[in-house]
Amino acid sequence: MLADYAAETAAGTTWQPKREDFREHVQEVFAASAATRLIGASLGRIAPGHVEVLLPCHERITQQHGFVHGGVLGMIADAAAALSALTVAAPGTIGVTVEYKINLLEAAFGELIIARGRLIRPGQAVSIAAADLYSVSASGREQMVATSLFTLASRTRRRRRA
Amino acid sequence: MLADYAAETAAGTTWQPKREDFREHVQEVFAASAATRLIGASLGRIAPGHVEVLLPCHERITQQHGFVHGGVLGMIADAAAALSALTVAAPGTIGVTVEYKINLLEAAFGELIIARGRLIRPGQAVSIAAADLYSVSASGREQMVATSLFTLASRTRRRRRA
Amino acid sequence: MLADYAAETAAGTTWQPKREDFREHVQEVFAASAATRLIGASLGRIAPGHVEVLLPCHERITQQHGFVHGGVLGMIADAAAALSALTVAAPGTIGVTVEYKINLLEAAFGELIIARGRLIRPGQAVSIAAADLYSVSASGREQMVATSLFTLASRTRRRRRA
Amino acid sequence: MLADYAAETAAGTTWQPKREDFREHVQEVFAASAATRLIGASLGRIAPGHVEVLLPCHERITQQHGFVHGGVLGMIADAAAALSALTVAAPGTIGVTVEYKINLLEAAFGELIIARGRLIRPGQAVSIAAADLYSVSASGREQMVATSLFTLASRTRRRRRA
Repeated sequence: MLADYAAETAAGTTWQPKREDFREHVQEVFAASAATRLIGASLGRIAPGHVEVLLPCHERITQQHGFVHGGVLGMIADAAAALSALTVAAPGTIGVTVEYKINLLEAAFGELIIARGRLIRPGQAVSIAAADLYSVSASGREQMVATSLFTLASRTRRRRRA
Repeated sequence: MLADYAAETAAGTTWQPKREDFREHVQEVFAASAATRLIGASLGRIAPGHVEVLLPCHERITQQHGFVHGGVLGMIADAAAALSALTVAAPGTIGVTVEYKINLLEAAFGELIIARGRLIRPGQAVSIAAADLYSVSASGREQMVATSLFTLASRTRRRRRA
Repeated sequence: MLADYAAETAAGTTWQPKREDFREHVQEVFAASAATRLIGASLGRIAPGHVEVLLPCHERITQQHGFVHGGVLGMIADAAAALSALTVAAPGTIGVTVEYKINLLEAAFGELIIARGRLIRPGQAVSIAAADLYSVSASGREQMVATSLFTLASRTRRRRRA
Repeated sequence: MLADYAAETAAGTTWQPKREDFREHVQEVFAASAATRLIGASLGRIAPGHVEVLLPCHERITQQHGFVHGGVLGMIADAAAALSALTVAAPGTIGVTVEYKINLLEAAFGELIIARGRLIRPGQAVSIAAADLYSVSASGREQMVATSLFTLASRTRRRRRA
């Protein structure tokens, strides 16, 4: 019985998108973010309440010890968590990250980092999401390197004046 | 009396560096981090228990709404907090970020973002630090845009094999 | 200059209450909380954006090593932070804690624990507050034992049906 | 594939206790905590890396709106997370909570609150654990009311002098 709750919290809940083109919408929003492009991140799988962000490891995103910078891990965690909430958001609303907390479990390096975002609780005003991060070695072995928790707020659309 | 505690927690505590060249050491560690260079960050003031990281605002570090990406704010917060602990670290030890939490208070843009790291509690195994982030407009007006809290661990030096 | 920001973030900002009886309102809300009564907490100073919660140390609130339980510290931090936001809230709204993060810096014991809540950023929908906790010895010496950060949401009044 | 990671992070990992009497040890440590007794909490299931803490809902642990106090939720989350790490700790070491972050998802009330702690990453110096909290209604329906993330440090045994 102890194991059962994993299903509900992480994978078992079935989220219902509020727009048919939620995948395209996630791709559009991700593509519009210059910062995630700067670090070389791309999108992986997109499903209701779940979004993967992929980050190939390269020298430009490392910290002083040669591992992927903890702040860079926070960036892809943020993207994955916020986009997982966006998959079920009502059209016309945007998600704003209110706060996040990330635990860095292991020095991160390898071929690729995968951030797996998952929606925990959608809400009209405030949504909660999480992202777990894994490093993937050349041989395909995954190791969890970070876990994070996000509070997101729904806002009506706003854009900074140029 | 309510106001008094600000002095102790933030500014009043006098930290004692354990090496004379702590400023040079902070500069070296910062310079060795490729990721902070990628986003264009530089060092500001360095004092015992306090380090500023400066980030000029530019298009490449924005998210989809044209503001500085929350993950980028996390990156400079991480740098400022970790380096503020490094100012008083014993020679031969390195600081590793165990976890952090950041609250994003305002959409961040302007000329410059300043992350002001401050050591809260140094420890042999675990240190606690904070970083407050401010946007600075062209006219020099500062606005607090984020606040964050970090848990750092001290480790003996380790470097990833090439 | 590094020290200057302490003033703004912690003590220098002048918050403006939206009701004259904000002190009485804070006292009423605090008195209505059975859980804080159970652990023996009481109110200290109340000022706009600042509320102190006092907790005499006694055996019933300790954990297995004889120190004040970390969860109890979280309780008084929550009370102090939420009430500090309440001092400037509009009449008719209530504050709900969305999330908090607390760093436990030292084993907490002594005569008294003081939680000093301070409002960081009020907002219509979401407010950010902090609480720093100090143990006070019989001789009056204060030691910081915890620091915490809170996200609060404003809601219209709601009460659980009996 | 998106669903697969739930197994690894939450339930699939098999933790290996380092002492045969880990259940008795968890019970002893829990029984020695006066604060959790004060709020009426008890232990549920104990398995390697997993501990449940049960809290019957009653008036004395409510906040001003009649729901279970958020700080009380933090207390049982702390107990469940720390004890889940204790199930696999080496004899002679104790776990100290360094910090935690908790998201309160729903107003909590009902017959019972269950905090399900799970170990995420054990470590010699620092361990990471989580706790998810559920309210259980009289009819047995569970609803997730909070989720939390903990950083724990291993220390050699210490007891406060009387």
